[in-house]
Amino acid sequence: MSNTRVAINGYGTIGKRVADAVDAQDDMEIVGVTKTGPSFGCDLAVKKGFPLYCTSDDPERIASFAAGGYECAGGLSDLLASSDIVVDCSPGKHGEENLATYRTVGIKAIFQGGEKHALTGLSYTSSANHAANLNADATRVVSCNTTGLSRTLVPLHDHCGSLKVECTMIRRAADPGDSKKGPINAIKPVLKVPSHHGPDVKTVKPEIEINSLAVAVPTTIMHVHAIIADLPEGHGLSTESVIDLWKAQPRVIVMAGEANRLTTTAEVMEMARDIGRKWGDLHEIFVWEDGVSLQGDRLYYFQAIHQESDVIPENVDAIRALMGTETDWRASVARTDAAISHYYNL
Amino acid sequence: MSNTRVAINGYGTIGKRVADAVDAQDDMEIVGVTKTGPSFGCDLAVKKGFPLYCTSDDPERIASFAAGGYECAGGLSDLLASSDIVVDCSPGKHGEENLATYRTVGIKAIFQGGEKHALTGLSYTSSANHAANLNADATRVVSCNTTGLSRTLVPLHDHCGSLKVECTMIRRAADPGDSKKGPINAIKPVLKVPSHHGPDVKTVKPEIEINSLAVAVPTTIMHVHAIIADLPEGHGLSTESVIDLWKAQPRVIVMAGEANRLTTTAEVMEMARDIGRKWGDLHEIFVWEDGVSLQGDRLYYFQAIHQESDVIPENVDAIRALMGTETDWRASVARTDAAISHYYNL
Amino acid sequence: MSNTRVAINGYGTIGKRVADAVDAQDDMEIVGVTKTGPSFGCDLAVKKGFPLYCTSDDPERIASFAAGGYECAGGLSDLLASSDIVVDCSPGKHGEENLATYRTVGIKAIFQGGEKHALTGLSYTSSANHAANLNADATRVVSCNTTGLSRTLVPLHDHCGSLKVECTMIRRAADPGDSKKGPINAIKPVLKVPSHHGPDVKTVKPEIEINSLAVAVPTTIMHVHAIIADLPEGHGLSTESVIDLWKAQPRVIVMAGEANRLTTTAEVMEMARDIGRKWGDLHEIFVWEDGVSLQGDRLYYFQAIHQESDVIPENVDAIRALMGTETDWRASVARTDAAISHYYNL
Amino acid sequence: MSNTRVAINGYGTIGKRVADAVDAQDDMEIVGVTKTGPSFGCDLAVKKGFPLYCTSDDPERIASFAAGGYECAGGLSDLLASSDIVVDCSPGKHGEENLATYRTVGIKAIFQGGEKHALTGLSYTSSANHAANLNADATRVVSCNTTGLSRTLVPLHDHCGSLKVECTMIRRAADPGDSKKGPINAIKPVLKVPSHHGPDVKTVKPEIEINSLAVAVPTTIMHVHAIIADLPEGHGLSTESVIDLWKAQPRVIVMAGEANRLTTTAEVMEMARDIGRKWGDLHEIFVWEDGVSLQGDRLYYFQAIHQESDVIPENVDAIRALMGTETDWRASVARTDAAISHYYNL
Repeated sequence: MSNTRVAINGYGTIGKRVADAVDAQDDMEIVGVTKTGPSFGCDLAVKKGFPLYCTSDDPERIASFAAGGYECAGGLSDLLASSDIVVDCSPGKHGEENLATYRTVGIKAIFQGGEKHALTGLSYTSSANHAANLNADATRVVSCNTTGLSRTLVPLHDHCGSLKVECTMIRRAADPGDSKKGPINAIKPVLKVPSHHGPDVKTVKPEIEINSLAVAVPTTIMHVHAIIADLPEGHGLSTESVIDLWKAQPRVIVMAGEANRLTTTAEVMEMARDIGRKWGDLHEIFVWEDGVSLQGDRLYYFQAIHQESDVIPENVDAIRALMGTETDWRASVARTDAAISHYYNL
Repeated sequence: MSNTRVAINGYGTIGKRVADAVDAQDDMEIVGVTKTGPSFGCDLAVKKGFPLYCTSDDPERIASFAAGGYECAGGLSDLLASSDIVVDCSPGKHGEENLATYRTVGIKAIFQGGEKHALTGLSYTSSANHAANLNADATRVVSCNTTGLSRTLVPLHDHCGSLKVECTMIRRAADPGDSKKGPINAIKPVLKVPSHHGPDVKTVKPEIEINSLAVAVPTTIMHVHAIIADLPEGHGLSTESVIDLWKAQPRVIVMAGEANRLTTTAEVMEMARDIGRKWGDLHEIFVWEDGVSLQGDRLYYFQAIHQESDVIPENVDAIRALMGTETDWRASVARTDAAISHYYNL
Repeated sequence: MSNTRVAINGYGTIGKRVADAVDAQDDMEIVGVTKTGPSFGCDLAVKKGFPLYCTSDDPERIASFAAGGYECAGGLSDLLASSDIVVDCSPGKHGEENLATYRTVGIKAIFQGGEKHALTGLSYTSSANHAANLNADATRVVSCNTTGLSRTLVPLHDHCGSLKVECTMIRRAADPGDSKKGPINAIKPVLKVPSHHGPDVKTVKPEIEINSLAVAVPTTIMHVHAIIADLPEGHGLSTESVIDLWKAQPRVIVMAGEANRLTTTAEVMEMARDIGRKWGDLHEIFVWEDGVSLQGDRLYYFQAIHQESDVIPENVDAIRALMGTETDWRASVARTDAAISHYYNL
Repeated sequence: MSNTRVAINGYGTIGKRVADAVDAQDDMEIVGVTKTGPSFGCDLAVKKGFPLYCTSDDPERIASFAAGGYECAGGLSDLLASSDIVVDCSPGKHGEENLATYRTVGIKAIFQGGEKHALTGLSYTSSANHAANLNADATRVVSCNTTGLSRTLVPLHDHCGSLKVECTMIRRAADPGDSKKGPINAIKPVLKVPSHHGPDVKTVKPEIEINSLAVAVPTTIMHVHAIIADLPEGHGLSTESVIDLWKAQPRVIVMAGEANRLTTTAEVMEMARDIGRKWGDLHEIFVWEDGVSLQGDRLYYFQAIHQESDVIPENVDAIRALMGTETDWRASVARTDAAISHYYNL
């Protein structure tokens, strides 16, 4: 079977990572990536050997790349014409317009969590609903936060049969390379209560009852979730067996914080740098083992989310789901992670 | 009736504020404040006209004040001998030793939230248990966080008859003047789950069921509480009537965040600076009106706590409780606040 | 002699402070302050008893105040008609338009450092050029940074006869109440080299040779200047006599950092809160005594600038200069500071 | 010729990076790395395949590794016995004791910038004094700041014949993984004036006249230097030719900030993550091209230093200097960088 030909529309924070992850797989390849014009970000594409396309078909804009010293292989239409599927990593709010373009061309499409579920009527995380996404025309890989919640809540729900969740999200205010945003010395609550973050889990796992509150704080690395989950009677779980459940789950790291001196998100990300993945990324959700506590039927835990990278492997799996090239989610996850997540035994 | 004579043992962040607040009342007066030795903090006491005492009775340490250019009126024993009550604002962990000293002298004592409830077996917030503290020998004014929770939860409980609460505390990492502490760019979860913060409310209001999770974040101004309270059936409340309940409560400010451009703790503290209290303090708890939402029997809300000052007026009320000079908590609160909290109509 | 009648056009961060400072003087009074429309900031004016005017003469906008629950005394023209002088504290970039309005009315005007020197052709700091501003129609009180440089450099220059200065400015990124700005975890150099900050000193003291470099850092409190000043041969100064020179200068505080535990801007601002001025302001420039070092003819020192407040007393002095009510700058400074800067002996 | 056998004593922030860089060279190899006991950091060594040794020869401490699940190959003496040279990356202050140990064994040694020059009487940067270090018994690779200054100042000095420099250092307060240190919202001047940082350059290039001032600011990524260099008369340089001089220098990146959207240290480090080196490191010094300005004989510029990694390649070169295996510094630099700094054309 020939490789799936993948286009990346938007080569920024997410796009550059998805391109790298796709490139590392042996059943898919990057046909090209798009930029709005010649800029520093083009260098990375050139270095990686990814053909550069313009986000527009406007000949003038296409020509501007040459003026900036970059070879441009054509406009978006040219890229889509030679691809099987497009991963849309554009900055958001262009979903509807882009989807219309993709449909005209007749190409499958994957959007990111910045778009609403309603755009495609279908959302995706690897562990929640891979099967429901098989052979679909278009889907949305949910946000980093929703992906993170799905990783720990779905196995818990599947074990228990039902789940009621409250999550308080302590969100990083800006990405590391985003130097204009604040706040510098403040906490900012999201005053829409409950926030939209938690309920978004229902787009991939409608059976989970969940609400959330959110605040933004002045850091650039990782969101933290403080989670309270009410298990149904007769769940048969203990703090230890919940931990075991998660340790058996792909893309979840469960480690003691105090014993390993990993007591903050700074130290967790430092560990990620040690592991040696590109950009110092951590694709996995990090759960502090000593912060998990089941009190009667109420489970408390903290997890940390690397906002720039946890959705990257889901995008790879989503490609296989839409192309129908791998029907078993666990098999896809194993294949994806073997190629990009050379994580040593922790 | 003669004024209550108050000693302040420990003239730091809390001590200097309590001294100011006591000094502003017309039924009590500052007899003196203690410092460990001559240092910059002594200047403030001198300027305020508060007699300076040494935290120790050691003649050499008492003499050291003169060498530093300050007049020292004596040792701790001298101060206690001429006082009716001592407010212990020492840095914590000296509670047991200090309480023994106070008992030997036969003086009443108020401790702060850094000490455990077990030290005195009695804790205090104005709205929760003023009556239970009347004429007691010693009590503990609970921490800024517990005081803040008491302000909004006690009236809610008293209206409903029962209450089950989960609180996620997003804590400032250090006080503004504390320049050594971090973390700079990280979120630090408190891995003891549930944390001790929420349950401490039971020391003043045992009927409230409450647990909490806590994280520290890199700011110096205000804690934020993300609170979920389950009201009992038949509570008869609506989002609006909960807001009205709090608006009628002393030391609780309820204001719209978006409409007033008070969307972060930075802007709330800026408002406090405008009001013109000493140190830019905000004695009241700040509740974002547009962040209150009652969904069925589950109430969600955010509140912000000025960690340096919300306990200050409670210390004044606690003096009246222990001295038995005011039996009605609302009367004491009104008297305290009229003297220090010239808060204009918001 | 009757009081000088002062209008404040723009009642924000600077305007509210200037209004308070003017109000505290016994030779001037606030006629009114302007706001663009009804908003939270109006409350402060009402509380202070300052008549509220609209920044525009548009009847519809004037009427909007009543809808917001505030009494509006009229438009800007009404305010100017009953004033002798206007202090323009509008957000900047409206200088030319506003100056034209003021000139049409025939009212004297003081602008802030956000405007360019060319607007009025005249700039002001109390110690540098009060005499040159006497009876002028319009002037500009220079920025917080330039004011701060003027405080320590002018007496040094006047003693030595000439001065060559290089200043590296480590600038706070945002004001405390400004919760949207970053950067959170970055240093941002001002790539225009030399920066405009230092040379602006020449607008009030052309004889000083000065250049500057600037970086922005993620704090909200105080700028820090790292200054290198080359004294001319035969200056006759020592580290000690430089310190004495500054101690004799108004609005300069020189204190040891290590001995007083004032080693960072956080602790300096905490001291300012203790002093008890409105908003916790520090009108004076803070020089670390143990950071002053004269090596041959080259003087090194650090100073810290409270960006929100050091220009406030200069505005009051500038009013007296333009009105011609006080020809001696030292007399004006003494009068201004006695009313607002009850600073105890440090 | 057989490979140089290298021991790493202290496998932390610097040690782990030096080990990786040495391991990547084809003329040297890692014999082993030391840890004080079993801890999370041991995992990285195991993963890398570096034999683990104990920093002590105490049998009990050696045995403790097995208890923690790690194989320990012996004590420090065992490691040194089978090595040609040791790179001492211990936390500092143990220099004298360690040097004595190394001398007893008769092994060559390289220390880091946390130790004083006096320890070895010899210091090192690749471009300044490789020749002077040839075949020496022990040297010290200077600190990240001194290394950074050496990179841009040495070629400037060598071109001009003399140089007088003032540098204001805006220092990051803590490393990214160091979550306890502050300050969170403050600027902290180094009150020892001039600071020790700049003059340390003289340990590798005594001909350069240099002083420095330093402040710490709340970031975790990169130091920034604001530099003023006085060139001697007849230097014949222009802003452009200075830039060309640096572009021709190894381990110096000169790029426009505004045009490339690299206006802060955050964006510079984000670029470093794109390049794909381990830990997202940037071994090169980053000079903002649009921040370089020669005004007469005075040169102004800004440079940024990645504090965790710029000394790493110097350590590799220093090994070759002490072993006498490469006498030409440029040849060593080229060899080192080809193995670790696959930096694409910028």
